[in-house]
Amino acid sequence: MCEAAAYVLRNGQEELLLSAVDIIEPEGDSLRLVNIFGEQKVIKADFLRLNLVNHKIILMEK
Amino acid sequence: MCEAAAYVLRNGQEELLLSAVDIIEPEGDSLRLVNIFGEQKVIKADFLRLNLVNHKIILMEK
Repeated sequence: MCEAAAYVLRNGQEELLLSAVDIIEPEGDSLRLVNIFGEQKVIKADFLRLNLVNHKIILMEK
Repeated sequence: MCEAAAYVLRNGQEELLLSAVDIIEPEGDSLRLVNIFGEQKVIKADFLRLNLVNHKIILMEK
């Protein structure tokens, strides 16, 4: 499977927001993340970097 | 490998922008995409949807 882990960069640290992320969609000024288990997170954040081969998504809160 | 294909939505059609995408980073008001072969594309676009399990990234030009 090719899902990725989504992290939020806070104070220079990468904090895990949601693992096994499948879908990410903008929703207003937020991002909605859904993982392969159906768990959802909505966060006011922007993409900082996607690294798909390493299964890693870094977000930064607005 | 877990790279994805990036498409741009134009006139309701998904046009392939770059295949085998590994990295995506914002660069000013654009996105910089790099694939596993080192090919790069820079496009003034926003994310419309990421579907990682289906290896698909949909962008929309600004």
